[in-house]
Amino acid sequence: MRSLVVKSCCLFFLILFVSQHYSVSATKKPLDPKKPCKRFVLYYHDILFDGDDVANATSATSANATGLGNFNFGKLVVFNDPMTKDQHLLSPPVARAQGFYFYDLKTNYNAWFAYTLVFNSSDYKGTLNIMGANIAMEKTRELSVVGGTGDFFMTRGIATFETMSIEGFKYFRLKMDIKLYECY
Amino acid sequence: MRSLVVKSCCLFFLILFVSQHYSVSATKKPLDPKKPCKRFVLYYHDILFDGDDVANATSATSANATGLGNFNFGKLVVFNDPMTKDQHLLSPPVARAQGFYFYDLKTNYNAWFAYTLVFNSSDYKGTLNIMGANIAMEKTRELSVVGGTGDFFMTRGIATFETMSIEGFKYFRLKMDIKLYECY
Amino acid sequence: MRSLVVKSCCLFFLILFVSQHYSVSATKKPLDPKKPCKRFVLYYHDILFDGDDVANATSATSANATGLGNFNFGKLVVFNDPMTKDQHLLSPPVARAQGFYFYDLKTNYNAWFAYTLVFNSSDYKGTLNIMGANIAMEKTRELSVVGGTGDFFMTRGIATFETMSIEGFKYFRLKMDIKLYECY
Repeated sequence: MRSLVVKSCCLFFLILFVSQHYSVSATKKPLDPKKPCKRFVLYYHDILFDGDDVANATSATSANATGLGNFNFGKLVVFNDPMTKDQHLLSPPVARAQGFYFYDLKTNYNAWFAYTLVFNSSDYKGTLNIMGANIAMEKTRELSVVGGTGDFFMTRGIATFETMSIEGFKYFRLKMDIKLYECY
Repeated sequence: MRSLVVKSCCLFFLILFVSQHYSVSATKKPLDPKKPCKRFVLYYHDILFDGDDVANATSATSANATGLGNFNFGKLVVFNDPMTKDQHLLSPPVARAQGFYFYDLKTNYNAWFAYTLVFNSSDYKGTLNIMGANIAMEKTRELSVVGGTGDFFMTRGIATFETMSIEGFKYFRLKMDIKLYECY
Repeated sequence: MRSLVVKSCCLFFLILFVSQHYSVSATKKPLDPKKPCKRFVLYYHDILFDGDDVANATSATSANATGLGNFNFGKLVVFNDPMTKDQHLLSPPVARAQGFYFYDLKTNYNAWFAYTLVFNSSDYKGTLNIMGANIAMEKTRELSVVGGTGDFFMTRGIATFETMSIEGFKYFRLKMDIKLYECY
Protein backbone atom coordinates (compact mmCIF):
# COMPACT_ATOMS: atom_id res chain seq x y z
CA MET A 1 0.00 0.00 0.00
CA ARG A 2 2.74 2.49 0.94
CA SER A 3 4.76 1.29 -1.97
CA LEU A 4 1.82 2.27 -4.13
CA VAL A 5 1.79 5.74 -2.61
CA VAL A 6 5.48 6.10 -3.33
CA LYS A 7 4.97 4.96 -6.91
CA SER A 8 2.06 7.29 -7.48
CA CYS A 9 4.07 10.10 -6.02
CA CYS A 10 6.94 9.32 -8.39
CA LEU A 11 4.59 9.10 -11.34
CA PHE A 12 2.91 12.37 -10.39
CA PHE A 13 6.21 14.23 -10.41
CA LEU A 14 7.36 12.52 -13.56
CA ILE A 15 4.28 13.79 -15.39
CA LEU A 16 4.75 17.25 -13.95
CA PHE A 17 8.37 17.25 -15.05
CA VAL A 18 7.63 16.18 -18.57
CA SER A 19 4.87 18.72 -18.99
CA GLN A 20 7.09 21.38 -17.51
CA HIS A 21 10.03 20.38 -19.64
CA TYR A 22 8.03 21.06 -22.76
CA SER A 23 6.70 24.36 -21.58
CA VAL A 24 10.23 25.34 -20.61
CA SER A 25 11.94 24.70 -23.93
CA ALA A 26 9.00 26.53 -25.41
CA THR A 27 9.92 29.66 -23.52
CA LYS A 28 12.68 31.60 -25.28
CA LYS A 29 9.20 32.19 -26.68
CA PRO A 30 8.62 30.77 -30.19
CA LEU A 31 7.28 33.99 -31.66
CA ASP A 32 4.37 33.51 -33.99
CA PRO A 33 4.25 35.98 -36.91
CA LYS A 34 0.47 35.80 -36.75
CA LYS A 35 0.25 36.69 -33.06
CA PRO A 36 1.78 40.07 -32.32
CA CYS A 37 1.39 41.32 -28.74
CA LYS A 38 0.39 44.73 -30.13
CA ARG A 39 -0.64 45.88 -33.58
CA PHE A 40 -1.78 49.07 -35.27
CA VAL A 41 -2.04 50.49 -38.75
CA LEU A 42 -0.93 54.05 -39.49
CA TYR A 43 -0.57 56.08 -42.68
CA TYR A 44 2.59 58.02 -43.55
CA HIS A 45 2.32 61.18 -45.68
CA ASP A 46 5.42 62.60 -47.34
CA ILE A 47 5.29 66.03 -48.99
CA LEU A 48 8.65 66.82 -50.56
CA PHE A 49 9.93 70.41 -50.38
CA ASP A 50 10.29 71.99 -53.82
CA GLY A 51 12.01 75.15 -52.64
CA ASP A 52 8.80 77.07 -52.33
CA ASP A 53 6.18 75.47 -50.10
CA VAL A 54 7.76 75.76 -46.65
CA ALA A 55 4.36 75.73 -44.96
CA ASN A 56 3.17 72.41 -46.41
CA ALA A 57 6.36 70.46 -47.05
CA THR A 58 7.31 67.76 -44.53
CA SER A 59 10.53 66.48 -46.11
CA ALA A 60 13.49 67.85 -48.04
CA THR A 61 16.31 66.57 -50.24
CA SER A 62 19.61 66.61 -48.32
CA ALA A 63 21.75 65.02 -51.01
CA ASN A 64 20.95 64.94 -54.71
CA ALA A 65 20.73 61.95 -57.03
CA THR A 66 24.13 60.79 -58.26
CA GLY A 67 23.58 60.02 -61.93
CA LEU A 68 23.95 56.27 -61.45
CA GLY A 69 20.91 55.25 -63.49
CA ASN A 70 17.67 57.16 -63.89
CA PHE A 71 15.94 56.37 -60.61
CA ASN A 72 17.46 58.84 -58.16
CA PHE A 73 20.21 56.52 -56.94
CA GLY A 74 21.85 58.18 -53.95
CA LYS A 75 19.22 60.89 -53.42
CA LEU A 76 18.76 61.29 -49.66
CA VAL A 77 15.60 62.79 -48.17
CA VAL A 78 15.16 63.85 -44.53
CA PHE A 79 11.55 63.79 -43.31
CA ASN A 80 9.34 64.77 -40.39
CA ASP A 81 6.07 63.34 -41.61
CA PRO A 82 2.61 63.14 -40.04
CA MET A 83 1.20 59.69 -39.25
CA THR A 84 -2.59 59.39 -39.34
CA LYS A 85 -5.05 56.66 -38.42
CA ASP A 86 -6.85 56.87 -41.74
CA GLN A 87 -5.69 57.70 -45.24
CA HIS A 88 -6.54 61.42 -45.13
CA LEU A 89 -3.57 63.74 -45.15
CA LEU A 90 -5.46 66.29 -43.09
CA SER A 91 -6.61 63.93 -40.34
CA PRO A 92 -5.12 64.80 -36.95
CA PRO A 93 -1.69 63.15 -36.75
CA VAL A 94 -1.24 60.57 -33.97
CA ALA A 95 2.53 60.45 -34.36
CA ARG A 96 5.41 61.95 -36.34
CA ALA A 97 7.82 59.89 -38.42
CA GLN A 98 11.28 61.50 -38.08
CA GLY A 99 14.08 60.06 -40.18
CA PHE A 100 15.39 59.67 -43.69
CA TYR A 101 15.26 57.55 -46.82
CA PHE A 102 17.47 57.30 -49.86
CA TYR A 103 17.05 55.69 -53.26
CA ASP A 104 19.41 52.81 -53.98
CA LEU A 105 18.59 51.06 -57.25
CA LYS A 106 19.59 51.75 -60.85
CA THR A 107 16.46 50.27 -62.37
CA ASN A 108 13.58 51.31 -60.12
CA TYR A 109 12.61 53.60 -57.19
CA ASN A 110 13.87 51.34 -54.45
CA ALA A 111 14.50 53.03 -51.11
CA TRP A 112 16.06 52.39 -47.69
CA PHE A 113 14.45 53.85 -44.55
CA ALA A 114 15.55 54.56 -40.98
CA TYR A 115 13.31 56.59 -38.71
CA THR A 116 11.61 57.04 -35.38
CA LEU A 117 7.87 57.12 -34.81
CA VAL A 118 7.36 59.73 -32.09
CA PHE A 119 4.04 59.34 -30.24
CA ASN A 120 2.78 62.07 -27.96
CA SER A 121 -0.97 61.60 -27.71
CA SER A 122 -3.47 60.42 -25.14
CA ASP A 123 -3.18 56.91 -26.61
CA TYR A 124 0.59 56.52 -26.52
CA LYS A 125 3.68 58.34 -25.37
CA GLY A 126 7.04 57.04 -26.52
CA THR A 127 8.95 56.09 -29.64
CA LEU A 128 9.48 53.19 -32.05
CA ASN A 129 12.77 52.89 -33.95
CA ILE A 130 12.53 51.31 -37.39
CA MET A 131 14.92 50.47 -40.23
CA GLY A 132 14.99 48.42 -43.40
CA ALA A 133 14.56 48.16 -47.14
CA ASN A 134 11.47 49.44 -48.94
CA ILE A 135 11.79 47.13 -51.94
CA ALA A 136 10.13 48.62 -55.00
CA MET A 137 9.20 45.39 -56.72
CA GLU A 138 7.08 43.93 -53.94
CA LYS A 139 3.51 44.82 -53.05
CA THR A 140 4.27 44.73 -49.33
CA ARG A 141 7.70 45.12 -47.73
CA GLU A 142 8.84 44.31 -44.21
CA LEU A 143 11.14 46.48 -42.11
CA SER A 144 12.41 45.84 -38.57
CA VAL A 145 11.19 47.60 -35.45
CA VAL A 146 14.51 47.46 -33.61
CA GLY A 147 13.63 49.17 -30.34
CA GLY A 148 11.23 51.37 -28.47
CA THR A 149 10.91 53.71 -25.51
CA GLY A 150 8.15 54.98 -23.21
CA ASP A 151 4.96 53.00 -23.74
CA PHE A 152 6.96 50.89 -26.19
CA PHE A 153 9.83 50.21 -23.78
CA MET A 154 12.31 47.73 -25.31
CA THR A 155 9.86 46.44 -27.91
CA ARG A 156 10.75 44.76 -31.20
CA GLY A 157 8.67 43.85 -34.22
CA ILE A 158 7.93 44.21 -37.91
CA ALA A 159 6.58 47.18 -39.89
CA THR A 160 4.92 46.19 -43.15
CA PHE A 161 4.87 48.91 -45.82
CA GLU A 162 2.37 49.19 -48.63
CA THR A 163 2.23 52.08 -51.09
CA MET A 164 -1.20 53.73 -51.15
CA SER A 165 -0.63 56.68 -53.44
CA ILE A 166 2.14 58.39 -55.40
CA GLU A 167 1.69 61.85 -56.88
CA GLY A 168 4.83 62.47 -58.92
CA PHE A 169 7.76 63.51 -56.73
CA LYS A 170 5.58 65.77 -54.65
CA TYR A 171 3.57 63.44 -52.42
CA PHE A 172 3.33 59.79 -51.52
CA ARG A 173 1.46 57.86 -48.90
CA LEU A 174 2.43 54.57 -47.29
CA LYS A 175 0.40 52.24 -45.12
CA MET A 176 2.48 51.04 -42.19
CA ASP A 177 1.14 47.95 -40.46
CA ILE A 178 3.08 47.75 -37.22
CA LYS A 179 3.24 44.42 -35.40
CA LEU A 180 5.12 44.17 -32.12
CA TYR A 181 6.24 40.74 -30.88
CA GLU A 182 8.12 41.69 -27.74
CA CYS A 183 6.07 43.76 -25.32
CA TYR A 184 7.18 44.58 -21.77
CA MET B 1 13.37 -1.18 1.95
CA ARG B 2 10.48 1.22 1.28
CA SER B 3 12.46 3.98 2.94
CA LEU B 4 15.14 3.29 0.34
CA VAL B 5 12.60 3.64 -2.47
CA VAL B 6 11.46 6.94 -1.04
CA LYS B 7 15.05 8.18 -0.75
CA SER B 8 15.93 7.12 -4.31
CA CYS B 9 12.79 8.80 -5.49
CA CYS B 10 13.80 12.01 -3.68
CA LEU B 11 17.32 11.85 -5.08
CA PHE B 12 16.03 11.19 -8.58
CA PHE B 13 13.88 14.31 -8.53
CA LEU B 14 16.60 16.39 -6.94
CA ILE B 15 18.94 15.56 -9.82
CA LEU B 16 16.19 16.27 -12.32
CA PHE B 17 15.56 19.62 -10.67
CA VAL B 18 19.16 20.71 -10.72
CA SER B 19 19.63 19.70 -14.34
CA GLN B 20 16.37 21.37 -15.19
CA HIS B 21 17.35 24.52 -13.36
CA TYR B 22 20.16 25.01 -15.86
CA SER B 23 18.02 24.37 -18.90
CA VAL B 24 15.37 26.61 -17.40
CA SER B 25 17.50 29.68 -17.89
CA ALA B 26 16.03 29.52 -21.40
CA THR B 27 13.16 31.86 -20.49
CA LYS B 28 12.36 35.49 -21.05
CA LYS B 29 12.44 38.09 -18.33
CA PRO B 30 9.71 40.69 -17.71
CA LEU B 31 12.05 43.69 -18.00
CA ASP B 32 11.80 46.43 -15.38
CA PRO B 33 12.75 49.95 -16.60
CA LYS B 34 14.13 50.70 -13.13
CA LYS B 35 16.42 47.68 -13.02
CA PRO B 36 18.97 47.71 -15.82
CA CYS B 37 21.54 44.93 -15.71
CA LYS B 38 24.25 47.49 -16.50
CA ARG B 39 24.30 51.27 -16.38
CA PHE B 40 26.78 54.06 -16.94
CA VAL B 41 26.77 57.77 -17.66
CA LEU B 42 29.04 59.27 -20.29
CA TYR B 43 29.40 62.73 -21.82
CA TYR B 44 29.48 63.35 -25.56
CA HIS B 45 31.43 66.33 -26.93
CA ASP B 46 30.79 67.54 -30.48
CA ILE B 47 33.12 70.14 -32.04
CA LEU B 48 31.88 71.02 -35.53
CA PHE B 49 34.47 71.63 -38.27
CA ASP B 50 34.34 75.20 -39.59
CA GLY B 51 36.79 74.62 -42.43
CA ASP B 52 39.76 75.72 -40.41
CA ASP B 53 40.29 73.81 -37.17
CA VAL B 54 41.22 70.34 -38.41
CA ALA B 55 43.15 69.60 -35.23
CA ASN B 56 40.27 70.21 -32.80
CA ALA B 57 37.15 69.44 -34.83
CA THR B 58 35.48 66.07 -34.23
CA SER B 59 32.54 66.36 -36.65
CA ALA B 60 31.82 67.84 -40.07
CA THR B 61 28.82 68.79 -42.19
CA SER B 62 28.31 66.23 -44.99
CA ALA B 63 25.10 67.71 -46.40
CA ASN B 64 23.96 71.28 -45.97
CA ALA B 65 20.65 72.56 -44.63
CA THR B 66 17.90 72.53 -47.24
CA GLY B 67 16.08 75.80 -46.72
CA LEU B 68 12.97 74.15 -45.32
CA GLY B 69 12.51 76.46 -42.35
CA ASN B 70 15.23 78.19 -40.36
CA PHE B 71 16.47 75.35 -38.18
CA ASN B 72 18.89 73.47 -40.43
CA PHE B 73 16.32 70.96 -41.72
CA GLY B 74 18.22 68.31 -43.67
CA LYS B 75 21.71 69.29 -42.49
CA LEU B 76 23.66 66.06 -41.95
CA VAL B 77 26.71 65.90 -39.68
CA VAL B 78 29.14 62.98 -39.45
CA PHE B 79 30.96 62.73 -36.11
CA ASN B 80 33.72 60.86 -34.34
CA ASP B 81 33.34 62.35 -30.89
CA PRO B 82 35.10 61.67 -27.59
CA MET B 83 33.06 60.25 -24.71
CA THR B 84 34.24 61.15 -21.22
CA LYS B 85 33.24 60.07 -17.72
CA ASP B 86 32.86 63.65 -16.49
CA GLN B 87 31.79 66.84 -18.20
CA HIS B 88 35.29 68.07 -19.10
CA LEU B 89 36.07 68.07 -22.80
CA LEU B 90 39.72 67.39 -22.09
CA SER B 91 39.23 64.43 -19.76
CA PRO B 92 40.67 61.20 -21.20
CA PRO B 93 38.02 59.70 -23.49
CA VAL B 94 36.74 56.25 -22.47
CA ALA B 95 35.01 55.65 -25.81
CA ARG B 96 34.41 57.22 -29.23
CA ALA B 97 30.96 57.93 -30.61
CA GLN B 98 31.10 57.27 -34.39
CA GLY B 99 28.02 58.09 -36.42
CA PHE B 100 25.83 60.88 -37.70
CA TYR B 101 22.93 63.17 -36.90
CA PHE B 102 20.72 65.35 -39.02
CA TYR B 103 18.24 68.10 -38.23
CA ASP B 104 14.65 67.33 -39.08
CA LEU B 105 12.25 70.01 -37.86
CA LYS B 106 11.08 73.29 -39.36
CA THR B 107 10.46 75.01 -36.03
CA ASN B 108 13.32 73.94 -33.75
CA TYR B 109 16.73 72.17 -33.66
CA ASN B 110 15.37 68.64 -33.53
CA ALA B 111 17.82 65.92 -34.57
CA TRP B 112 17.96 62.20 -35.36
CA PHE B 113 21.01 60.14 -34.32
CA ALA B 114 22.51 56.80 -35.31
CA TYR B 115 25.95 55.88 -34.03
CA THR B 116 28.24 53.35 -32.44
CA LEU B 117 29.99 53.75 -29.10
CA VAL B 118 33.41 52.17 -29.59
CA PHE B 119 35.06 51.14 -26.31
CA ASN B 120 38.71 50.17 -26.22
CA SER B 121 39.87 50.70 -22.65
CA SER B 122 40.85 48.59 -19.68
CA ASP B 123 37.22 48.79 -18.47
CA TYR B 124 35.46 47.70 -21.65
CA LYS B 125 36.22 46.43 -25.13
CA GLY B 126 33.39 46.30 -27.62
CA THR B 127 30.66 48.42 -29.16
CA LEU B 128 27.11 49.63 -28.54
CA ASN B 129 24.86 50.50 -31.48
CA ILE B 130 22.32 53.25 -30.85
CA MET B 131 19.62 55.03 -32.86
CA GLY B 132 16.66 57.30 -32.27
CA ALA B 133 15.20 60.77 -32.10
CA ASN B 134 16.79 63.57 -30.08
CA ILE B 135 13.60 65.56 -29.59
CA ALA B 136 14.33 69.26 -29.04
CA MET B 137 11.31 70.07 -26.90
CA GLU B 138 11.98 67.58 -24.13
CA LYS B 139 14.44 67.90 -21.27
CA THR B 140 15.47 64.26 -21.58
CA ARG B 141 15.07 62.07 -24.66
CA GLU B 142 15.29 58.30 -25.01
CA LEU B 143 17.01 56.46 -27.85
CA SER B 144 17.33 52.70 -28.39
CA VAL B 145 20.48 50.66 -27.84
CA VAL B 146 19.75 48.11 -30.56
CA GLY B 147 22.77 45.82 -30.27
CA GLY B 148 26.27 45.35 -28.97
CA THR B 149 29.48 43.41 -29.49
CA GLY B 150 32.49 42.33 -27.41
CA ASP B 151 31.86 43.01 -23.72
CA PHE B 152 28.39 44.15 -24.76
CA PHE B 153 27.62 41.02 -26.80
CA MET B 154 23.99 41.07 -28.00
CA THR B 155 22.88 43.68 -25.48
CA ARG B 156 19.87 45.98 -25.80
CA GLY B 157 18.75 48.98 -23.80
CA ILE B 158 17.95 52.67 -23.61
CA ALA B 159 20.21 55.72 -23.93
CA THR B 160 18.79 58.84 -22.28
CA PHE B 161 20.07 62.14 -23.70
CA GLU B 162 20.23 65.42 -21.84
CA THR B 163 21.78 68.59 -23.23
CA MET B 164 24.46 69.97 -20.92
CA SER B 165 25.85 72.86 -22.96
CA ILE B 166 25.48 74.49 -26.37
CA GLU B 167 28.00 77.04 -27.64
CA GLY B 168 26.52 78.33 -30.89
CA PHE B 169 27.10 75.91 -33.77
CA LYS B 170 30.63 75.22 -32.66
CA TYR B 171 30.30 72.95 -29.65
CA PHE B 172 27.67 71.07 -27.73
CA ARG B 173 27.76 68.53 -24.95
CA LEU B 174 25.23 65.80 -24.19
CA LYS B 175 24.88 63.60 -21.16
CA MET B 176 24.17 60.02 -22.22
CA ASP B 177 22.75 57.81 -19.48
CA ILE B 178 23.05 54.29 -20.85
CA LYS B 179 20.89 51.57 -19.32
CA LEU B 180 21.20 48.01 -20.61
CA TYR B 181 18.37 45.54 -19.96
CA GLU B 182 19.64 42.48 -21.78
CA CYS B 183 23.10 41.38 -20.67
CA TYR B 184 24.71 38.10 -21.66
CA MET C 1 6.07 6.91 9.65
CA ARG C 2 6.95 5.99 6.08
CA SER C 3 3.76 7.57 4.94
CA LEU C 4 5.00 10.73 6.58
CA VAL C 5 8.27 10.50 4.67
CA VAL C 6 6.35 10.09 1.44
CA LYS C 7 4.15 13.06 2.24
CA SER C 8 7.11 15.27 3.18
CA CYS C 9 8.79 14.22 0.00
CA CYS C 10 5.70 15.16 -2.02
CA LEU C 11 5.41 18.50 -0.22
CA PHE C 12 9.09 19.22 -0.70
CA PHE C 13 8.80 18.81 -4.46
CA LEU C 14 5.58 20.73 -4.61
CA ILE C 15 7.27 23.71 -2.96
CA LEU C 16 10.25 23.37 -5.25
CA PHE C 17 7.96 23.34 -8.26
CA VAL C 18 6.07 26.41 -7.25
CA SER C 19 9.20 28.37 -6.35
CA GLN C 20 10.81 27.25 -9.59
CA HIS C 21 7.80 28.29 -11.60
CA TYR C 22 8.19 31.86 -10.37
CA SER C 23 11.93 32.04 -10.80
CA VAL C 24 11.47 30.78 -14.35
CA SER C 25 9.73 33.86 -15.61
CA ALA C 26 12.73 35.83 -14.34
CA THR C 27 15.40 34.20 -16.47
CA LYS C 28 17.04 34.71 -19.83
CA LYS C 29 18.99 32.32 -21.99
CA PRO C 30 22.74 32.78 -21.53
CA LEU C 31 23.68 33.18 -25.21
CA ASP C 32 27.00 31.64 -26.14
CA PRO C 33 29.04 33.60 -28.73
CA LYS C 34 30.42 30.29 -30.00
CA LYS C 35 27.01 28.73 -30.61
CA PRO C 36 24.97 30.72 -33.10
CA CYS C 37 21.65 29.15 -34.12
CA LYS C 38 22.45 29.98 -37.75
CA ARG C 39 25.66 31.00 -39.50
CA PHE C 40 26.82 31.77 -43.00
CA VAL C 41 29.68 33.53 -44.73
CA LEU C 42 29.05 35.89 -47.65
CA TYR C 43 31.24 38.25 -49.67
CA TYR C 44 30.33 41.88 -50.34
CA HIS C 45 31.55 43.55 -53.54
CA ASP C 46 31.49 47.34 -53.82
CA ILE C 47 32.16 49.01 -57.20
CA LEU C 48 32.06 52.77 -56.77
CA PHE C 49 30.53 54.86 -59.59
CA ASP C 50 33.07 57.19 -61.19
CA GLY C 51 30.57 59.05 -63.37
CA ASP C 52 31.11 56.81 -66.33
CA ASP C 53 30.53 53.11 -65.65
CA VAL C 54 26.77 52.97 -65.00
CA ALA C 55 26.60 49.35 -66.12
CA ASN C 56 29.14 47.99 -63.63
CA ALA C 57 28.95 50.39 -60.69
CA THR C 58 27.00 49.22 -57.63
CA SER C 59 27.46 52.26 -55.37
CA ALA C 60 27.70 56.03 -55.69
CA THR C 61 28.86 59.00 -53.63
CA SER C 62 25.86 60.92 -52.25
CA ALA C 63 27.81 63.45 -50.21
CA ASN C 64 31.42 64.42 -50.75
CA ALA C 65 34.27 64.38 -48.26
CA THR C 66 34.35 67.44 -46.02
CA GLY C 67 38.00 68.38 -45.84
CA LEU C 68 38.35 67.36 -42.20
CA GLY C 69 41.61 65.43 -42.59
CA ASN C 70 42.74 63.45 -45.61
CA PHE C 71 40.70 60.29 -45.25
CA ASN C 72 37.34 61.20 -46.74
CA PHE C 73 35.74 62.26 -43.44
CA GLY C 74 32.02 62.78 -44.11
CA LYS C 75 31.94 61.15 -47.56
CA LEU C 76 28.68 59.21 -47.79
CA VAL C 77 28.21 56.33 -50.23
CA VAL C 78 24.90 54.64 -51.06
CA PHE C 79 25.24 51.05 -52.27
CA ASN C 80 23.26 48.18 -53.73
CA ASP C 81 25.96 45.54 -53.76
CA PRO C 82 25.95 41.86 -54.74
CA MET C 83 26.65 39.27 -52.03
CA THR C 84 28.26 36.05 -53.19
CA LYS C 85 29.06 32.74 -51.51
CA ASP C 86 32.67 32.77 -52.68
CA GLN C 87 35.12 35.58 -53.32
CA HIS C 88 34.47 35.92 -57.06
CA LEU C 89 32.76 39.14 -58.08
CA LEU C 90 31.05 37.40 -60.97
CA SER C 91 29.61 34.48 -58.99
CA PRO C 92 25.80 34.48 -58.94
CA PRO C 93 24.69 36.78 -56.10
CA VAL C 94 22.68 35.10 -53.32
CA ALA C 95 21.60 38.44 -51.82
CA ARG C 96 21.87 42.21 -52.28
CA ALA C 97 23.27 44.54 -49.65
CA GLN C 98 21.23 47.77 -49.80
CA GLY C 99 22.37 50.64 -47.61
CA PHE C 100 25.08 53.21 -47.03
CA TYR C 101 28.43 53.86 -45.40
CA PHE C 102 30.31 57.01 -44.60
CA TYR C 103 33.89 57.70 -43.57
CA ASP C 104 34.31 59.13 -40.09
CA LEU C 105 37.96 59.39 -39.07
CA LYS C 106 40.61 62.05 -39.63
CA THR C 107 43.56 59.65 -39.58
CA ASN C 108 42.42 56.53 -41.44
CA TYR C 109 39.64 55.09 -43.66
CA ASN C 110 37.25 54.24 -40.86
CA ALA C 111 33.61 53.78 -41.90
CA TRP C 112 30.14 53.35 -40.43
CA PHE C 113 27.61 51.01 -42.12
CA ALA C 114 23.84 50.57 -42.02
CA TYR C 115 22.21 48.26 -44.56
CA THR C 116 19.78 45.49 -45.33
CA LEU C 117 20.71 42.11 -46.77
CA VAL C 118 17.86 41.25 -49.14
CA PHE C 119 17.59 37.51 -49.87
CA ASN C 120 15.40 36.26 -52.67
CA SER C 121 16.73 32.84 -53.62
CA SER C 122 15.70 29.23 -53.27
CA ASP C 123 17.75 29.06 -50.05
CA TYR C 124 16.32 32.08 -48.27
CA LYS C 125 13.63 34.72 -48.67
CA GLY C 126 13.70 37.67 -46.31
CA THR C 127 15.95 40.39 -44.97
CA LEU C 128 18.58 41.04 -42.31
CA ASN C 129 19.09 44.57 -40.96
CA ILE C 130 22.62 45.43 -39.87
CA MET C 131 24.40 48.46 -38.45
CA GLY C 132 27.70 49.33 -36.79
CA ALA C 133 31.24 50.57 -37.05
CA ASN C 134 33.73 49.18 -39.55
CA ILE C 135 36.85 50.09 -37.55
CA ALA C 136 39.85 50.53 -39.83
CA MET C 137 42.52 49.55 -37.34
CA GLU C 138 41.23 46.08 -36.57
CA LYS C 139 41.62 42.94 -38.66
CA THR C 140 38.03 41.88 -37.96
CA ARG C 141 35.18 44.15 -36.88
CA GLU C 142 31.81 43.28 -35.39
CA LEU C 143 28.52 44.92 -36.34
CA SER C 144 25.03 44.20 -34.97
CA VAL C 145 22.30 42.32 -36.80
CA VAL C 146 19.40 44.23 -35.24
CA GLY C 147 16.44 42.55 -36.88
CA GLY C 148 15.16 40.34 -39.66
CA THR C 149 12.09 39.47 -41.69
CA GLY C 150 10.79 36.50 -43.71
CA ASP C 151 12.99 33.46 -43.13
CA PHE C 152 14.91 35.60 -40.64
CA PHE C 153 11.81 36.73 -38.74
CA MET C 154 12.81 38.73 -35.63
CA THR C 155 16.39 37.44 -35.59
CA ARG C 156 19.37 39.17 -33.98
CA GLY C 157 23.09 38.50 -34.18
CA ILE C 158 26.58 39.63 -35.09
CA ALA C 159 28.14 40.30 -38.52
CA THR C 160 31.92 40.07 -38.52
CA PHE C 161 33.65 42.06 -41.27
CA GLU C 162 37.06 41.31 -42.73
CA THR C 163 38.59 43.17 -45.65
CA MET C 164 39.57 40.80 -48.46
CA SER C 165 40.69 43.20 -51.17
CA ILE C 166 40.94 46.93 -51.86
CA GLU C 167 41.61 48.26 -55.35
CA GLY C 168 42.04 52.01 -54.91
CA PHE C 169 38.71 53.82 -54.58
CA LYS C 170 37.16 51.71 -57.32
CA TYR C 171 36.52 48.33 -55.73
CA PHE C 172 36.69 46.62 -52.38
CA ARG C 173 35.56 43.27 -51.07
CA LEU C 174 34.55 42.38 -47.54
CA LYS C 175 33.98 38.99 -45.98
CA MET C 176 30.85 39.07 -43.83
CA ASP C 177 30.59 36.23 -41.34
CA ILE C 178 26.99 36.32 -40.14
CA LYS C 179 26.12 34.63 -36.86
CA LEU C 180 22.53 34.67 -35.63
CA TYR C 181 21.80 34.01 -31.94
CA GLU C 182 18.06 34.45 -31.84
CA CYS C 183 16.20 32.26 -34.34
CA TYR C 184 12.43 31.84 -34.40
